[in-house]
Amino acid sequence: MLYGWHPVSQALANAGRHFHRLLATENALARLKEAGIELPIEPEMVRPSAIDRLLGPDAVHQGLYAEAEPLAAPALDAMPDDALLLALDQITDPHNVGAIVRTAAAFGVTAIVTTARHSPNATGVLAKSASGGLEHVPLVIVRNLAEALITLGERGFTRIGLDSDAGTTLDAVGPRRPAVLVLGAEGKGLRQRTTECCDLLVRIDATGAIRSLNVSNAAAITLYALTRSAGTAA
Amino acid sequence: MLYGWHPVSQALANAGRHFHRLLATENALARLKEAGIELPIEPEMVRPSAIDRLLGPDAVHQGLYAEAEPLAAPALDAMPDDALLLALDQITDPHNVGAIVRTAAAFGVTAIVTTARHSPNATGVLAKSASGGLEHVPLVIVRNLAEALITLGERGFTRIGLDSDAGTTLDAVGPRRPAVLVLGAEGKGLRQRTTECCDLLVRIDATGAIRSLNVSNAAAITLYALTRSAGTAA
Repeated sequence: MLYGWHPVSQALANAGRHFHRLLATENALARLKEAGIELPIEPEMVRPSAIDRLLGPDAVHQGLYAEAEPLAAPALDAMPDDALLLALDQITDPHNVGAIVRTAAAFGVTAIVTTARHSPNATGVLAKSASGGLEHVPLVIVRNLAEALITLGERGFTRIGLDSDAGTTLDAVGPRRPAVLVLGAEGKGLRQRTTECCDLLVRIDATGAIRSLNVSNAAAITLYALTRSAGTAA
Repeated sequence: MLYGWHPVSQALANAGRHFHRLLATENALARLKEAGIELPIEPEMVRPSAIDRLLGPDAVHQGLYAEAEPLAAPALDAMPDDALLLALDQITDPHNVGAIVRTAAAFGVTAIVTTARHSPNATGVLAKSASGGLEHVPLVIVRNLAEALITLGERGFTRIGLDSDAGTTLDAVGPRRPAVLVLGAEGKGLRQRTTECCDLLVRIDATGAIRSLNVSNAAAITLYALTRSAGTAA
């Protein structure tokens, strides 16, 4: 389930998406036409209230609602040699995951590995927070994160865990590809089994009164630092 | 209005806060006692449902609700010489502002300059997103942002605007204090009048499919880069 201008318009522009249903207001259809987006499915023209009824009154849907198949996810053993992945260890809040997807799209992340299966409703919230990013960064859903990290390690990935107690700061990590950046849930951090599967543990060096960052902010800083290092060395 | 464990417990621990009212469940009172927090006001012990009725069913209040005076804000012309400020140009969403406050607290930001006055309800959401950060980073509310930036410029502040179209990247900005980092609203960016009051415009170098970042993620990256430069030079 997708709603809102960025999620739906970018999904419509993605040839890899298979749609079951598209609801749009007259204004939204005009805006899609103006943006030159061809519709892969016949839309049902509706009033905004019809979409309100599907989503509840608080969802900012901007006149667009769609039902579509999830995107096909690439296999872990078919990732390119210069891949940069994120792995989410028990991060489930769809707002946080969506914000991470959006920032991952901005920094050219190849894919996001997660164990979380989101309900259709949560997927709508996630896609909305991702602001179109879901079309660019596939979610690879695995049963067991530790096994996925072991597989990636065998394929030559450097597994970098973010941990506020780590002895090494983010600055010290040079450019590495392929790499997977492993993020834990706020407050809980990485599970021990996850930590054991990492090659490196790093912390963000912040010296203020509060130690813990919002997880999407921590992800943003780390992606900036890791892609910057790569750029500097190139 | 404050609710939730981090906002209320950190406010209670802040000697500068003046409380009008404190509602707490039995569990929350036990947790405050365990944390060694002395209560500056006699609490009213209530059931969780009493706080639900005040906040609505969706607020995660963790058994704590308080009404308190806003913190006294320092004057713009009394900032220390090594101050690092944020200025928010029409960023009003309380979730975004709260996330920015939290990250600002982590990076030791001196104060946040804004024109937005939040309602008590919005302040509760902001404080909750800030996760206690509001006790460490005061909000300085000004009538006119451009005038505030001019005042800061006269006091020797370097005014750094974040602008996705800027020719200079964040990496190129060395350590500067005092400095004020100016952030615009998502989609709209900085207003022209605000841009004119900046000494430098910088962009975050992101090369992925999506250009725009969530504003709190952009703030986090910029604070990391600016405080890191300062650290590297020291």
